[in-house]
Amino acid sequence: MIVTNETVARLYLKKVEAALGNYDVKTVVLADGERYKTLETVTTILDRLLEHRFNRDCTLLALGGGVVGDMSGFAAACYQRGVDLIQVPTTLLSQVDSSVGGKTGVNHRLGKNMIGAFHQPAGVVIDVDTLATLSAREYSAGIAEVIKYALINDGAFFDWLSGNIEKIMAREYAALLFCISRSCRNKARLIEADEREDGQRALLNLGHTFGHAIEAASGYGKVLHGEAVAIGLCLAAELSCSMGLLSGSDKDRIYSLVKRAGLPVNAPKDISHRAMMEFMRHDKKIDKGVLRLVLLKEPGVSFICSQFENDLLEEVVTAA
Amino acid sequence: MIVTNETVARLYLKKVEAALGNYDVKTVVLADGERYKTLETVTTILDRLLEHRFNRDCTLLALGGGVVGDMSGFAAACYQRGVDLIQVPTTLLSQVDSSVGGKTGVNHRLGKNMIGAFHQPAGVVIDVDTLATLSAREYSAGIAEVIKYALINDGAFFDWLSGNIEKIMAREYAALLFCISRSCRNKARLIEADEREDGQRALLNLGHTFGHAIEAASGYGKVLHGEAVAIGLCLAAELSCSMGLLSGSDKDRIYSLVKRAGLPVNAPKDISHRAMMEFMRHDKKIDKGVLRLVLLKEPGVSFICSQFENDLLEEVVTAA
Repeated sequence: MIVTNETVARLYLKKVEAALGNYDVKTVVLADGERYKTLETVTTILDRLLEHRFNRDCTLLALGGGVVGDMSGFAAACYQRGVDLIQVPTTLLSQVDSSVGGKTGVNHRLGKNMIGAFHQPAGVVIDVDTLATLSAREYSAGIAEVIKYALINDGAFFDWLSGNIEKIMAREYAALLFCISRSCRNKARLIEADEREDGQRALLNLGHTFGHAIEAASGYGKVLHGEAVAIGLCLAAELSCSMGLLSGSDKDRIYSLVKRAGLPVNAPKDISHRAMMEFMRHDKKIDKGVLRLVLLKEPGVSFICSQFENDLLEEVVTAA
Repeated sequence: MIVTNETVARLYLKKVEAALGNYDVKTVVLADGERYKTLETVTTILDRLLEHRFNRDCTLLALGGGVVGDMSGFAAACYQRGVDLIQVPTTLLSQVDSSVGGKTGVNHRLGKNMIGAFHQPAGVVIDVDTLATLSAREYSAGIAEVIKYALINDGAFFDWLSGNIEKIMAREYAALLFCISRSCRNKARLIEADEREDGQRALLNLGHTFGHAIEAASGYGKVLHGEAVAIGLCLAAELSCSMGLLSGSDKDRIYSLVKRAGLPVNAPKDISHRAMMEFMRHDKKIDKGVLRLVLLKEPGVSFICSQFENDLLEEVVTAA
């Protein structure tokens, strides 16, 4: 069963259906948007699977961005206690991030991705050509995660990005291939070492604790996930700098790259900073009551930190 | 968080809360009954976890029968992509069956246990004393699964049960301890060999493909799961016998034990046999379009069979 949304269906559904010619294929077309990433929508997928009498030997094919992938993945994880999943991500964000690693899930009114499962895809098929139809805003949002992979543990990649961001922005094929494969490889390496996020995988949360709080406090859907992550990367750099871990010039290089990628460095003006702090305290990465943040020593050197002054954190969030 | 139902809460909730004295414990009390084993009820548990701001280091404690255990287990599997679960089963059925093995899930209007996950409990605590408050009907329903474990691969246990069923019916402590631990051990051994049900674990479905069809065709809740399994065991014996695999006298011994355990051997009079066949064709154990049934050569010798005459199957179901 192909799971996709209205927007992607118009562009690529016929091609994918044709490519699957010999299979018995049904399709579910969902509404487009993060606000539909709910248990109700997943229920729709499950209903359809049952109505069409799909058995446990079926495969779900997620055709679309991260929202489609997360929901298809969770449906595949739950349907008859687990069936196969193939991810065909069509956005830059999902190509470098959500399609790899097995995280699936939906949002809850009280928090993002609060309900879900780990369910590794049987395969991920990335066609860089699909990026041609992506809006500039969605495209930039994907670059936020690419910058994140560089910042975590790949200083050489950060330098390359700083020198080649214009090629990426122009969607040059060779630069894109390099950039996407390097990002996927970096992510896969961290996950292989630690599938369930107790150790190294947690580094992938760089910028995300801030980012999730921004998404939640501004109401899901207003700020794109990648935009929130971009702001989160800047806040992580800001906090690292104010703690004396990261130099001011390195911080400036990070801000500069984020801006050149067409991404915001500040939270929306009308955001409630108190709500942001509240969401951060309730983040699911909180371990035994202690909030852990990923901070930076330099671009390419990150670490997990649970000992920081609350005053500094509040200051950074308030100025966000 | 303790998850329980109204009936069990009245009997044991205070004791369990007292035993957990030093922990920060919240409780969710669900309505009692298989008809509440739905995604909606699981959503209630997830809502409560989020409202109380439980983090990923929380533990769910399932206090009750199989319905409570299956839903708590699924909630634990999905909450923040997986938290710990302790099963405290209070019915014979859940003590010998659902609390061990990691299967969790809920029903869908189009099929039983169609939505769920594999999620092994961190621990299972069985207190045989809780069986004292179980109704005669619920108690018998549990024995159906005990008989199943004997039939699958433990002829000596079947002989023991045939000689001691009256002690079990009288709920004699020593007989119960033996019977429950033998059942759990038998089940655990099959699952260790094969957690995901591709091979040996499938033997645990003895009587269940018929049983699920009976439950579904009669409307969930009318026939208890254990009663449906008891009828299913008899139908499996019937089909095995009509195929010339099982002797008539062995079939009679099975029927006799089921009856002495206070269990039905025939489907409810008003059941639609056509609906039953329909549900069997849609069973989730169907592999690449082929229905597989567990059949018997003798009590204690079972095997998975996908080659049987459809006419014989229809005959057996029609006469059920």
